[in-house]
Amino acid sequence: RSYTIAVLPGDGIGLEVTPPALRCLEAAAERFGFTLNFRHFEWASCDYYLKHGKMLPDDWKRLLQECDAIYFGAVGDPARVPDHISLWGSLLRFRREFDQYINLRPCRLMRGVPSPLANAKPGSIDFLTVRENTEGEYSSIGGMIFEGTERETVIQDTVFTRVGVDRVIRYAFERARARPAKKLTSATKSNGISITMPYWDQRVAEIAKEYPDVKVDKYHIDILCAHFVLRPHIFDVVVGSNLFGDILSDLGPACTGTIGIAPSANLNPVSKRTDPDWKPSLFEPVHGSAPDIAGKGIANPVGMIWAGQMMFEHLGETEAAAAVLAAIENVLGDAQDRLQKGGEDVLTPDMGGKGTTEGLGKAIEIALKTS
Amino acid sequence: RSYTIAVLPGDGIGLEVTPPALRCLEAAAERFGFTLNFRHFEWASCDYYLKHGKMLPDDWKRLLQECDAIYFGAVGDPARVPDHISLWGSLLRFRREFDQYINLRPCRLMRGVPSPLANAKPGSIDFLTVRENTEGEYSSIGGMIFEGTERETVIQDTVFTRVGVDRVIRYAFERARARPAKKLTSATKSNGISITMPYWDQRVAEIAKEYPDVKVDKYHIDILCAHFVLRPHIFDVVVGSNLFGDILSDLGPACTGTIGIAPSANLNPVSKRTDPDWKPSLFEPVHGSAPDIAGKGIANPVGMIWAGQMMFEHLGETEAAAAVLAAIENVLGDAQDRLQKGGEDVLTPDMGGKGTTEGLGKAIEIALKTS
Ligand SMILES: CC(C)[C@H](C(=O)O)[C@@H](O)C(=O)O
Ligand SMILES: CC(C)[C@H](C(=O)O)[C@@H](O)C(=O)O
Repeated sequence: RSYTIAVLPGDGIGLEVTPPALRCLEAAAERFGFTLNFRHFEWASCDYYLKHGKMLPDDWKRLLQECDAIYFGAVGDPARVPDHISLWGSLLRFRREFDQYINLRPCRLMRGVPSPLANAKPGSIDFLTVRENTEGEYSSIGGMIFEGTERETVIQDTVFTRVGVDRVIRYAFERARARPAKKLTSATKSNGISITMPYWDQRVAEIAKEYPDVKVDKYHIDILCAHFVLRPHIFDVVVGSNLFGDILSDLGPACTGTIGIAPSANLNPVSKRTDPDWKPSLFEPVHGSAPDIAGKGIANPVGMIWAGQMMFEHLGETEAAAAVLAAIENVLGDAQDRLQKGGEDVLTPDMGGKGTTEGLGKAIEIALKTS
Repeated sequence: RSYTIAVLPGDGIGLEVTPPALRCLEAAAERFGFTLNFRHFEWASCDYYLKHGKMLPDDWKRLLQECDAIYFGAVGDPARVPDHISLWGSLLRFRREFDQYINLRPCRLMRGVPSPLANAKPGSIDFLTVRENTEGEYSSIGGMIFEGTERETVIQDTVFTRVGVDRVIRYAFERARARPAKKLTSATKSNGISITMPYWDQRVAEIAKEYPDVKVDKYHIDILCAHFVLRPHIFDVVVGSNLFGDILSDLGPACTGTIGIAPSANLNPVSKRTDPDWKPSLFEPVHGSAPDIAGKGIANPVGMIWAGQMMFEHLGETEAAAAVLAAIENVLGDAQDRLQKGGEDVLTPDMGGKGTTEGLGKAIEIALKTS
């Protein structure tokens, strides 16, 4: 087996977490007998934009479609390029144009990562957020009237389509059905956002009828965020709109210690390349380019490595995926044990250590080679 | 001094937390030499709706405008009355029609309330959320097209007006200026919500020029929620849109242990009754009517009592306000100490105790009478 992977490190710490992560993926591929052909691209970055006046080359779509998957670091550097250029010109554009309508983000409290929550034990937090990834609050429709006057008014539309809402909800139900707890929580705000969110609720209720074996509940986003902190163990699969999913998939990982470890799969679920509807999916860490710590070599590479694990899942390399996840968990857990005993420290600062991107990446790579 | 207060207990636990809270307010009034005349209204409740087919009597506006302030319990019971009737027919309507454009919610980690955060010490979390309360995402503008077909599309507008945005931001700056840390954090999502949120950012940046003494920063709502959990001590005043403020003002209190203690002031800042623009402000706990625990007598009355404290502030009774806050802090702190020693327990279950609404309310009332 052989896969061609588009590698787009992007900006900031994206550039730092990519090389060690690639070495981990190669170690896993070698061990499980398949080949990864990386195609390295420097576009989809602010550097590229400042040199070429555009975020992407003209043939970007063809270049990416020739690959089996996209492995993406992080993009954006608002001090140099406005977000509406850098993000809407790359990541958000890929999500739309490749119809990556599912943004899947696992959230798990791992051994070795100190949680900010007092009573959380490793394993006690283990859920999946399923985020709508193409429409909703990220509509780009709207505008301003009476500019510059006291009557100045700015309007933006939130757009929910039946197709868009149903497919993400159905996907979430499928995910819930495949898990032992078989439980789906829907994020809503139908008591305040009185048109789109009641529609969302109605579609959840309708589709729930197809899944009588899945327990369903819903919470308004305000109290849902509170529950993430107060009772994170009650969640199994959580489904939300583009905005709500975005919020929950940062908050969840924060409750497990750091968003530095959290991965993200931007999926177009048609996974067979031979299918005429096939489009590449994109795998990235949840964290951004973090200009504030870029260049220091201390970014957590786990989010990027774990994103690679999700890419392996998507490509059907489930054994390799399991090995990567096990390697991450073991390295973090053992590192924490050593740290407690005053020994060598590979944990990056966001996990309470003094380790480096390279050091932690190397430890996981070695674990993949030797276990 | 004498004040007329409209008392609207509403539904569910609103009915339970109101009586003990009123006794606390009366104790404080007596001690500081002013009079409270309570006008009790049973409307703005689902019971009233089911009896009369409407949430409010025809002369509700006059009745409330005759009062100096509105003291509100909680409304809603979705199993019996849809939210769009109960909430939009009362609380959300009051906010709009009395132009209560500021929703102010203090968040403070108190002695005696066990925080879910491992490293939080009493006093280490102490910030104020300032929420826009009349427009934004809660627009009620929008609708559906192609109903019942595969093309079904639902759209809702988010509306930001210059007046609405500027006044809440300016109010937040004023609040920040009056505090020792003089720091304002703006909640945004301009990287994803690409029309209204960049406008919000622009207004914050513009108004910041009038407040060179206030430090300003901004975070996207996703990472801001993460920081609430990971670094809550960095916040002083946080300003957000109707939706973002709603989310943050549930999440913040969750980080301090329970939303059961959190209060909320829905302010029209014109506080002089003689001003022709004067309109009544509304004070309520952050929590809702909580149908799941209603009738058990275990709801936390502190949110309601603390809301009364904010009402005293607004009425200019600052000494009484300070006394109420001190009584709350002392009673909770002492109760926790006693609880640790196995003694009498007045803390309600949401704070880890076995106390009752009545018992905890009584303890605070006694503290107000005797200290
Ligand atoms: C009940 C609901 C409509 C309300 C809101 O979202 O404003 C509540 O959550 C609040 O925070 O006061
Ligand atoms: C960078 C930003 C536009 C993006 C989003 O909001 O989708 C990010 O927060 C994410 O979660 O992938």
